[in-house]
Amino acid sequence: MLEWLRQYRRAQLPGDISAGIVVAMMMIPQGMAYAMVAGLPPVVGLYASIVPPLLYALFGSSMTQSIGPMAITSLMTASVLAPLAAPGSGLHMVLAAQLALLSGAVLLVCGLLRIGFLANFFSRPVMNGFTLGSSIVIALGQGDALLGAAFPHVHTLSAIVGGASLLLLILARAYLARVLRWCGLPAGVADVGARLAPMALVLGATVLSYLFHFSALGVHTTGQVPSGLPGLNLATSSAHWRVLVQPALLIGFMVFLISMSGAQTLALRRAEKLRSNHELIGLGMANIGAAVTGGFPVTGSLSRSAVNFAAGANTQLASIITAGLLALALVAPTGWLALLPLPVLAATIIVAVLGMLDVATLRTAWRYDRADALALLATAGGVLVLGVQSGVIVGLLLSMGAILWRASRPHIAVLGRIAGTEHFRNINRYAAGTTPSLLLLRIDAGLFFANVEPVRERIDEELAAHPGTRDLVLVLSAVNAIDTSALFGLIELNTMLRARDIGLHLAEVKGPVMDRLKDSTLLDTLHGKVFLSTAMAWDALSAAH
Amino acid sequence: MLEWLRQYRRAQLPGDISAGIVVAMMMIPQGMAYAMVAGLPPVVGLYASIVPPLLYALFGSSMTQSIGPMAITSLMTASVLAPLAAPGSGLHMVLAAQLALLSGAVLLVCGLLRIGFLANFFSRPVMNGFTLGSSIVIALGQGDALLGAAFPHVHTLSAIVGGASLLLLILARAYLARVLRWCGLPAGVADVGARLAPMALVLGATVLSYLFHFSALGVHTTGQVPSGLPGLNLATSSAHWRVLVQPALLIGFMVFLISMSGAQTLALRRAEKLRSNHELIGLGMANIGAAVTGGFPVTGSLSRSAVNFAAGANTQLASIITAGLLALALVAPTGWLALLPLPVLAATIIVAVLGMLDVATLRTAWRYDRADALALLATAGGVLVLGVQSGVIVGLLLSMGAILWRASRPHIAVLGRIAGTEHFRNINRYAAGTTPSLLLLRIDAGLFFANVEPVRERIDEELAAHPGTRDLVLVLSAVNAIDTSALFGLIELNTMLRARDIGLHLAEVKGPVMDRLKDSTLLDTLHGKVFLSTAMAWDALSAAH
Repeated sequence: MLEWLRQYRRAQLPGDISAGIVVAMMMIPQGMAYAMVAGLPPVVGLYASIVPPLLYALFGSSMTQSIGPMAITSLMTASVLAPLAAPGSGLHMVLAAQLALLSGAVLLVCGLLRIGFLANFFSRPVMNGFTLGSSIVIALGQGDALLGAAFPHVHTLSAIVGGASLLLLILARAYLARVLRWCGLPAGVADVGARLAPMALVLGATVLSYLFHFSALGVHTTGQVPSGLPGLNLATSSAHWRVLVQPALLIGFMVFLISMSGAQTLALRRAEKLRSNHELIGLGMANIGAAVTGGFPVTGSLSRSAVNFAAGANTQLASIITAGLLALALVAPTGWLALLPLPVLAATIIVAVLGMLDVATLRTAWRYDRADALALLATAGGVLVLGVQSGVIVGLLLSMGAILWRASRPHIAVLGRIAGTEHFRNINRYAAGTTPSLLLLRIDAGLFFANVEPVRERIDEELAAHPGTRDLVLVLSAVNAIDTSALFGLIELNTMLRARDIGLHLAEVKGPVMDRLKDSTLLDTLHGKVFLSTAMAWDALSAAH
Repeated sequence: MLEWLRQYRRAQLPGDISAGIVVAMMMIPQGMAYAMVAGLPPVVGLYASIVPPLLYALFGSSMTQSIGPMAITSLMTASVLAPLAAPGSGLHMVLAAQLALLSGAVLLVCGLLRIGFLANFFSRPVMNGFTLGSSIVIALGQGDALLGAAFPHVHTLSAIVGGASLLLLILARAYLARVLRWCGLPAGVADVGARLAPMALVLGATVLSYLFHFSALGVHTTGQVPSGLPGLNLATSSAHWRVLVQPALLIGFMVFLISMSGAQTLALRRAEKLRSNHELIGLGMANIGAAVTGGFPVTGSLSRSAVNFAAGANTQLASIITAGLLALALVAPTGWLALLPLPVLAATIIVAVLGMLDVATLRTAWRYDRADALALLATAGGVLVLGVQSGVIVGLLLSMGAILWRASRPHIAVLGRIAGTEHFRNINRYAAGTTPSLLLLRIDAGLFFANVEPVRERIDEELAAHPGTRDLVLVLSAVNAIDTSALFGLIELNTMLRARDIGLHLAEVKGPVMDRLKDSTLLDTLHGKVFLSTAMAWDALSAAH
């Protein structure tokens, strides 16, 4: 916590200041736009960009992460709240903050439980598919705002403003950096400068809106943006705690995954060490901060953090400067913001999410591992067809499935004795001798719930393949742990083998595993013996029959 | 499919007939009671007990599994539908069937995708905790019906009927089998006979209700039960497809887990082989069958299947007989069922779910593996505090966490050369020599998304511990697969090491892994070489610096 401040060097200051300013100018249109995606008044997006980054600066672990509203979490917020409250209503705002509070609490608890390893949960293809699907949903969701009326209706002037904004932003994305470089700016400055196109567009459109009275001509605008800093918000809806818990789990999970995947990309470039448990705590505090200042769920956004990084951010001081500038903007007169045409914001959203589309991963996965490519497409399809929340569940199920599939295929070898030695080896790979009445199985993985049934099935198969077996020895030299489910599995295996009058013996049980087993009933009821070595089991049992 | 029918032996018939009759007598009160738990009219529970077992008999794989309504799936149905429709309303019934349809479709798709290994997903403690929490929720949920009024109000006569029923059922559970044995019945018959206490109680209470006009005295009764078989139900609510998808995923998952855990217990006793993919298809068809006959989600219930087994069931013919008898009961005059006092049904529910309470697993886990015991308690707590749906999610998260935690800790060994040989071994366990500029790491697990970050971190640590390293060799002799996420991880590792001017080499890459890597860009950009053996890498690299 604040390690960076103790080690702060003066040389880091210019970079932090420039990044702080650039990100603030990026944050104003982005914050308002993502609030709109979440179905909230635009000012809420600014509120959510002040306190959360300050708290993240105190508790988080990434130096360049920029915390605030983000397209996907905003979409998830909108999708959770849609059936509960009308967008823009007071209840909607209260529930959005409550969702941030619960998501923050989830993250904080996970951080305190030190389960940051969950960040490894989504495979890249699944994460990519989720982003792909969400981007399309968000872009389509802005269609009405862009056209100024519910499709297929169109409000002509709105559509012209929206279409022109879209065109300008796309052109800026494609060519502005090049133009600025051509104008003589250094490459780095030009790249960063090009990212300010949305802010420039917002300012330009506001001026046009003022000059030509867009609002009177039927173009929807943001409307009155209250001036002043966000107040302390402690309002919650007691009727909605329960219904928000599950969405908060999903949102907390995605906040963490999105933030970590962005932070990892940047940390790699800076050879910086991320601590996932600190990250959980930082994100948890940031979301709680968002909640108590009337905001909604926030996370680290890769696109914004990348700009922060490119604009020179060395430490979280950059984000503190950004937050300070946003606070100043809210204290200053905000009347002009009321004139901002919504089709312009819709255009910034569409261009921002189109920037998240990345088909390179799909292409690589398609060529390299078709199953991964299908997981990507299934997750994207899940988001598109079933909605963003179910899309997360689809991603979870696919990832779980992949992990479980691997976990449930432990390597098991039938052992034989290398003649004239005390060595036992896999009979499929070595010329090793066996005895008909004795079956030696070496299990090459820790025994736990995900592989206990597959192991039992494999034992069944081997017993069927070796019908003369009178004694089965499980060689546990590679088994580092046996969980409760596997313990029950062994107890049941023992009962089953006893009924078939086959001895069940254990060999080479590791010390810690043995200590645990002594606390159970398995050893007392074992229809066989425990041997220190496979050779001792062989000597005792091969002579027995 | 129907394999059992082709191999049917006449000797199996008596057992199947007696089990069919016994389970039908058990099913009548149970079906009505579980419909009540789901917030549906009692007759719907009978509808859901006819077609589903017939379809399961055609497609399922367990011989003794008895398919129909079950307490936990009924609770989940109620919890999903509570915010969507008023219990007992037409919409509620339509949505219950729709939920069964979607759950069935989920199961069927999973079966066709052959992902039955998902049955290994919940650890025993998690499953036990889920059952524990659900039992308590169901029992508490019947309090009002038992007392005849919303607690703390009490309708005296109802409470007396309910309390007396509860007492009788508890006594029957504890002593009836013993009494029947004392009366001279064989032990097996006495045990099965004792399970018919609820049906006897239902009949007795109905007679009392008729004689003393319970209904006129303010005791709620089941009311008119329509006579006749269920008709074809194709009604669905088009507005609710999306909102039902996620619950259907959860319900489908639990239907499968509940059914498999019961079937596994019985299969073990019969030395029968279950095929989880057939089970998925059987359960999927059963739920689709429930949907099109106006029912609600169904599954195999361990308690009912155990009675089926104990009463002599040898094949699914027993279930077909049960279904036939229930159909007959619905065709016969059903007027008498209208008189059945609801407090009696509430008492049967409470006693049934109390029978599901099993603290032995908690006790074993507490002594054997505290983490498993805590997972059990957390899942039970999740169901109690957050509700049954979130309880499943808590269970999923805990199980995922446990699997992921294991998957993210691959064994990695630093290798050294055994002097005078071509053998390389873990330097922590063998006296093996190393070279300062060369670091050999053997990764003892397939590389995939869940371990790619941990592996990278471990590599970072080893590089920090061996600061003189100029060449890093990854020995992949135990790596059977590298997925897309791990491929990206290796590409990024290569970029990072190139920037630090450390060579990245691969050794002992298995054939199939190498074929895949040739389809990627990794080998073209590798800042190092691929060696056939570790010894060749050693010879080439230890001399280089």
